[in-house]
Amino acid sequence: MTNTRDDRYDYDLIVLGGGSGGLAVAFRAAQHGKRVVMLEPDELGGTCVNVGCVPKKAMWLAADLAGRIGLARAMGFDVPLRPSLSWKELVVHRQGYISNIHASYRKRLDESGVVRVPRRGRLVDAHTVECSDGVRVSGAHVVLATGAHPQRPDIPGAELGLVSDDFFNLCHAPAEVAIVGGGYIAVELGGLLQALGSRVTLLVRGSRLLDRFDGELAAQLAENLVQQGVRIEFNYRLRELQRDGDGKRVRVLGHDGPLDSVFDDVFFAIGRRGNSSDIGLEDVGVEVGDRGEVVVDAWQATAVPSVHAVGDIAGKVGLTPVAIAAARHLADRLFGGKPDAKMDYDNVPSVVFTHPPLGQVGLGEDEARERYGDVRVYRSSFRPMLQALADGTQRSLFKLVCAGPEERVVGVHLLGEAADEILQGFAVAVKMGATKAQFDATVAIHPTSSEEIVLMR
Amino acid sequence: MTNTRDDRYDYDLIVLGGGSGGLAVAFRAAQHGKRVVMLEPDELGGTCVNVGCVPKKAMWLAADLAGRIGLARAMGFDVPLRPSLSWKELVVHRQGYISNIHASYRKRLDESGVVRVPRRGRLVDAHTVECSDGVRVSGAHVVLATGAHPQRPDIPGAELGLVSDDFFNLCHAPAEVAIVGGGYIAVELGGLLQALGSRVTLLVRGSRLLDRFDGELAAQLAENLVQQGVRIEFNYRLRELQRDGDGKRVRVLGHDGPLDSVFDDVFFAIGRRGNSSDIGLEDVGVEVGDRGEVVVDAWQATAVPSVHAVGDIAGKVGLTPVAIAAARHLADRLFGGKPDAKMDYDNVPSVVFTHPPLGQVGLGEDEARERYGDVRVYRSSFRPMLQALADGTQRSLFKLVCAGPEERVVGVHLLGEAADEILQGFAVAVKMGATKAQFDATVAIHPTSSEEIVLMR
Repeated sequence: MTNTRDDRYDYDLIVLGGGSGGLAVAFRAAQHGKRVVMLEPDELGGTCVNVGCVPKKAMWLAADLAGRIGLARAMGFDVPLRPSLSWKELVVHRQGYISNIHASYRKRLDESGVVRVPRRGRLVDAHTVECSDGVRVSGAHVVLATGAHPQRPDIPGAELGLVSDDFFNLCHAPAEVAIVGGGYIAVELGGLLQALGSRVTLLVRGSRLLDRFDGELAAQLAENLVQQGVRIEFNYRLRELQRDGDGKRVRVLGHDGPLDSVFDDVFFAIGRRGNSSDIGLEDVGVEVGDRGEVVVDAWQATAVPSVHAVGDIAGKVGLTPVAIAAARHLADRLFGGKPDAKMDYDNVPSVVFTHPPLGQVGLGEDEARERYGDVRVYRSSFRPMLQALADGTQRSLFKLVCAGPEERVVGVHLLGEAADEILQGFAVAVKMGATKAQFDATVAIHPTSSEEIVLMR
Repeated sequence: MTNTRDDRYDYDLIVLGGGSGGLAVAFRAAQHGKRVVMLEPDELGGTCVNVGCVPKKAMWLAADLAGRIGLARAMGFDVPLRPSLSWKELVVHRQGYISNIHASYRKRLDESGVVRVPRRGRLVDAHTVECSDGVRVSGAHVVLATGAHPQRPDIPGAELGLVSDDFFNLCHAPAEVAIVGGGYIAVELGGLLQALGSRVTLLVRGSRLLDRFDGELAAQLAENLVQQGVRIEFNYRLRELQRDGDGKRVRVLGHDGPLDSVFDDVFFAIGRRGNSSDIGLEDVGVEVGDRGEVVVDAWQATAVPSVHAVGDIAGKVGLTPVAIAAARHLADRLFGGKPDAKMDYDNVPSVVFTHPPLGQVGLGEDEARERYGDVRVYRSSFRPMLQALADGTQRSLFKLVCAGPEERVVGVHLLGEAADEILQGFAVAVKMGATKAQFDATVAIHPTSSEEIVLMR
């Protein structure tokens, strides 16, 4: 659209929100020499840095260490089976890490010349945003990057429950925890808390975990969680939360009666909703969907030509790297002379940080059969060497879904130690259109878990 | 060559040696319905299973756990900084794991109908092998898979030194250890011993470690080893080993004088030599090279049409998966009706199990410049999250070497946590001819180390 400065406006770009997508579009537009203003009412880095990927991974790393200490003991190290953890000390380390990210973002924003306004903004017309202090700024383009927030169910006592954001305020492991949900946030939170000392009950509405992942791996994951001590109630229909007597504990009632446990904390992990209210979208004609998401096309464009959206509020794939990639493409298209730049939503890899982690790129077995008919599945189920050495029970399950006579690899599904790190390279290969024969032609790296993927028969 | 049974011979295939290559060729030939006899004088699985990859990785996993326990302490877990280790218990676990591999090989051999003779064999003509008990067997084809062994230098007192095989007989960490060599076995052994309690000195003839790996990563690895407490003497010219007084300890003398330390153990890791003597090669006209390796062409064939070689004795790339792949291709060519089957030695990935591990596929920066001229290098140096959280100092260094205007990725070089597991998928992509743009078009998996490889600028 515009590649030159448009002096009718104060700025070339107004960004609403300082999360990953907002930062990425601001940095890229500034690289292209544009005048950028960012309205960032909350902490820089948004959900990912403050109450998502980053602190979650920090807790996951701690949980991973706890597990490895147990394995070390089994292999001959003189360490306690369940070492005590100063959760507060862990939180200090975690928040220090996050502060460093904030500082680095602030520095980069300053160096990029991005104007930062620590206020909420609200669209008043297609080119104008009013800050919460009444000041108005105008821009040739507006990018909505206000993110999303965890939802609560519409049930009596919902206010007694917590959401994932609240997990990061904990300073100890609650003894008894219920988590409502069966998606990736529910299983990550459940796995973490169980590993760090809680007794966890997962209350899952459906009959399986992780609807958007391969069913066989999801079933194996459920088994792993149960082995770790997590209780899972499938087909659970939640009715109400009640305070237990005068205390702080919470009683959970389903349509089939109360659960026998009383919980210190109940977390809702039932989905997220775009932060699209009270920012003037209805006034300017930007369409909002059922989950509070801003409706955008493949170019991240709304129905209003100057208004775009990236990240969780755009409601497609709610992953930080997707927000960043979409934001960069958008900035390149608007300001970088690349009219065809857009995000490709095919073959986006993702990882669920359970123990062991679960990762996938491409299609699950069922999806692939629907799309291609002619599908062949390869499997490897094995016990990684560390587990075998320590008499551990944890197994890995890796799956390749191949389509057509040439056996193109259309899905890679990994549940097992190191799956989080193994997947990225295979995601490159899958996106390139790799065939099973090309996997097989690559020499294995021995002894690793990853080699199983090029050795399947 | 022959696809039907040749009744002039007792067997279709005689395999000398029960290591990885020998097993692979035997299994594959049996799959093709051939009569196979295997002469296996030593433990099944050869160097890899018994005194190589497998027990080495087991010790590496233990060393890794020791390191993580230190990180756990820094993050708030109540564990000792340097927990004591019952090395004997570890060895029991390790050897139990190896016994399971032996049992599984025996089972598979029996199921495949391979005849097993626990004797050494010696070629007496191009189709006949004499076993050490005098029995002769004849075969249409002979595959040499006798492996290799560690070399000792030709210096006074060499008999006072140990080799890598001896490492696996240790039942405790020697207090002071010298390791002569700078290749992958030297640095792996040195890293392991240092992590498991020894004080290690590396005596390196040249001015760098790991000649066959990228120089920049090798320099960083040297720095890591030094940080871990390893002393490295580059350009060291070893002259002699001497017994220290009447004791068991060993004094090391170089051409520039004695080292100030006295060592409990001195290990030679200066290279390996093919097990090609006393097996009759000279009698039948099979050519043997300087390092005891059997000279083979691209088809694993010697100058004698019925005699072939795979694995370490074939002297190309001394890696187990290479031996296995070459063996399978050979069996497919000889017995499987695939006259064009052969091993592709380009882009073989490999990993050095240091802490953190180092992996590479393809060309180093210098090699690439020589071959292509037009080379661009991308780098990412970062501190992985676990290190940052635990105030650790260990950094990762990842490098991409790209050639030509299309920036084809001709080398991937990883030094850092999880490099051992990250590399495999990227090796598939590199072998497929991936460009930098194809790496970049793949969405990152956040937060991981592997994502750095698709985010380099």
